[in-house]
Amino acid sequence: MTATLSIDALHALVAGALTRHGASQAQADAVARTVTAAERDGAASHGIFRVPGYVASLVSGKVTGDAVPTLTYPAPAVVSVDAGLGFAPLALETGIPALVQVARETGVAALTIRNCFHFAALWPEVEAVAAEGLVGLAATAATPMVAPAGARVPFFGTNPLAFAFPRPNGPPLVFDQAAAAMARGEIMLAAEAGEQVPEQVGIDAEGQPSTDPAAILGGAQLPFGGYKGSSIALMVELLAGAVAGDLFSPEAGRADNRDGGPPRGGEFLLALDIARFGHGEGWRARSEAFLDALSALDGVRLPGARRHANRATALAQGVSPDPNRLKTLRTLAGAD
Amino acid sequence: MTATLSIDALHALVAGALTRHGASQAQADAVARTVTAAERDGAASHGIFRVPGYVASLVSGKVTGDAVPTLTYPAPAVVSVDAGLGFAPLALETGIPALVQVARETGVAALTIRNCFHFAALWPEVEAVAAEGLVGLAATAATPMVAPAGARVPFFGTNPLAFAFPRPNGPPLVFDQAAAAMARGEIMLAAEAGEQVPEQVGIDAEGQPSTDPAAILGGAQLPFGGYKGSSIALMVELLAGAVAGDLFSPEAGRADNRDGGPPRGGEFLLALDIARFGHGEGWRARSEAFLDALSALDGVRLPGARRHANRATALAQGVSPDPNRLKTLRTLAGAD
Repeated sequence: MTATLSIDALHALVAGALTRHGASQAQADAVARTVTAAERDGAASHGIFRVPGYVASLVSGKVTGDAVPTLTYPAPAVVSVDAGLGFAPLALETGIPALVQVARETGVAALTIRNCFHFAALWPEVEAVAAEGLVGLAATAATPMVAPAGARVPFFGTNPLAFAFPRPNGPPLVFDQAAAAMARGEIMLAAEAGEQVPEQVGIDAEGQPSTDPAAILGGAQLPFGGYKGSSIALMVELLAGAVAGDLFSPEAGRADNRDGGPPRGGEFLLALDIARFGHGEGWRARSEAFLDALSALDGVRLPGARRHANRATALAQGVSPDPNRLKTLRTLAGAD
Repeated sequence: MTATLSIDALHALVAGALTRHGASQAQADAVARTVTAAERDGAASHGIFRVPGYVASLVSGKVTGDAVPTLTYPAPAVVSVDAGLGFAPLALETGIPALVQVARETGVAALTIRNCFHFAALWPEVEAVAAEGLVGLAATAATPMVAPAGARVPFFGTNPLAFAFPRPNGPPLVFDQAAAAMARGEIMLAAEAGEQVPEQVGIDAEGQPSTDPAAILGGAQLPFGGYKGSSIALMVELLAGAVAGDLFSPEAGRADNRDGGPPRGGEFLLALDIARFGHGEGWRARSEAFLDALSALDGVRLPGARRHANRATALAQGVSPDPNRLKTLRTLAGAD
């Protein structure tokens, strides 16, 4: 039976599951904000589906549940947060206000998150930047799951790239897309549901094309769009592994304890304050006209629009997560 | 008959064709450097094939042949060049040293080029940034040629995104890829050669799938990788049209005089100095190990590697451009 909960009630369950397994209240609340945001926006693959993995990584000791992120300013346009081997969300909440402040002074600024464990979507962080009126871009690597174009073994992570652009009269334009043809969370959901996935999503352990999600999870995902998507995945590796100064996906794969939780890794964020680019204010109206013309084309929906529509419904009516996952969450939270 | 020329001899012909039609020596030399670099690297679609278009835009008066780019510093991490309605290469040569200098101070910096006409590949500018040891990223829009995912009419430009990462013992890792499934120059070359192009490259004027390059040039190109490539094209529009503060592709299409030369537009560049990111020097060896492991995978070639191999050959032996194009170039240069 499907239950409907308020966002606050769901937050309390998620945070409770984490504190019950060793997370500090601050770490748990930050994770719970991203998990409930995903449920709220209809993005189930980053919702409460992820809580057992978060808990597993606390139980195994891989993640430091009471880590306190520390903020430094290594260069005039660079902000860095050492997450202290905690989860990413609290580190991001620590760093993003500083990133925004610096970008407003310098015009462009970067934030790097290091020594953290990232298990969430990237749109929450770029939306937070866009909510301050700035352009946001984010990238993070993972563990080997995607075969580079031409190869038949996993090497890149799914390597999402997210981008947000502020709009004056509503939510920002936002995309958050894996460099893989399909997000791994979606493949996991298909495996759970016993469904096939489209062709070109992945190959099996022998390197042969497959539409069986379980075979692909044991083989390799493919990048979207062939060698061009593969280049995007490579760029993400270099932004997260070299620029942010944390593990490349193959390094993270070797370091991981396979507890089912998030891998260790870094994240790269960029913020741009267009108002500081010296060409006045005309871009605001021109950008709106451009985006309005785009969304007026037959067959086009702006990235992020469906998620924002789901959000409005959820804020008014609450959310109805998958009953089995909600049951698991209640058990982990000791709420049964 | 195929003639072989030195890079210097080809440069003189290209620059001569431009000065003979009203370009200043400085504008002509800068364009000639990008055109000869493309021939040198075996990238024919940005080589002397483009010279008639450059000349046409001088003859029509669309481009200001003796424009002198001006450099400003609108914010601590932002450099801007007003190209004065000249060609992009001289504006880039004016701005890139300043971009590099600022990025070394601030860690991350942006360069915008405005009021310019861009008709070249983007890898020359990101390679120039990487040659200074920094990470480079560049993006520019164009005129409507690509249908957004779901749509059947051209709206986005081909919207290349280029990225370069420095390597200590050789040329940088570089990619420069259109957000279109195939670069327009390649489609034009296919049309010229009477060849078909692959499926998924474009649609005809009625919105139907086509492999006829002429039909696609009169219809719309498609983005690579479906809606994800379309999102990349959209990001490029917002970087070039809003952040750089110049025309979006639909605006540039309306403004263009259809002389066959480059459209007006802006360009966005980003430079990152990893040495300023506060995590020491370990990234250099780790990045090399990562890239070596990637290139050791069966079936993988690093982006840019083929171009750099062609370059070594051309620098030693000269280049042998297409005879018909060389004949046209000689005529334009008054060298026949």
